[in-house]
Amino acid sequence: MSNFAKTPEPPYYAVIFTSKRTEVDKGYGTMAERMVEFASKEKGYLGIESAREADFGITVSYWDSLEAIQKWKEHAVHKIAQEKGKAEWYKNYSVRISKVERDYSF
Amino acid sequence: MSNFAKTPEPPYYAVIFTSKRTEVDKGYGTMAERMVEFASKEKGYLGIESAREADFGITVSYWDSLEAIQKWKEHAVHKIAQEKGKAEWYKNYSVRISKVERDYSF
Repeated sequence: MSNFAKTPEPPYYAVIFTSKRTEVDKGYGTMAERMVEFASKEKGYLGIESAREADFGITVSYWDSLEAIQKWKEHAVHKIAQEKGKAEWYKNYSVRISKVERDYSF
Repeated sequence: MSNFAKTPEPPYYAVIFTSKRTEVDKGYGTMAERMVEFASKEKGYLGIESAREADFGITVSYWDSLEAIQKWKEHAVHKIAQEKGKAEWYKNYSVRISKVERDYSF
């Protein structure tokens, strides 16, 4: 994490996940690592970028298709994290699914 | 900053700005605040979300059109920040322009 994702030429997809954490830490770090580990094995996964500042965090994951995003959303391990996330780790979160049309870097 | 952006129903646009900072701080905080202040006065601006963890940061700004994004990119004050950013504040950065097609929150 905390590094640039090496994405291909657009178009590709970005899932922008913003979240406000609770103060409950129980297993959060392990879960976050496992999510990256599992996601990165999925077909269509292109990379991930993440930063958290106090209780507010942004994670952007990149995918080659909407189908890949949907499959990851329904992944069994991810489902468990989603449930525990709502019950314990997150006060609020927001998910935005977007299509990257252009990119450039310095 | 460090809060959820209240965006309208999709579609709208997200500019995903990821960056690695140098250790040079000269005016960085003031510039960051000014950028938010100026951007938020622009036509088509919808909101901004930002988090930095150590030297890696993610800022996502939301806009109602590609034209609004282009106009902000060419804004005089923003141009100066871009130049100073390359010269002093950022080791690397990446900009991705994407169209949000779907969103949901908890």
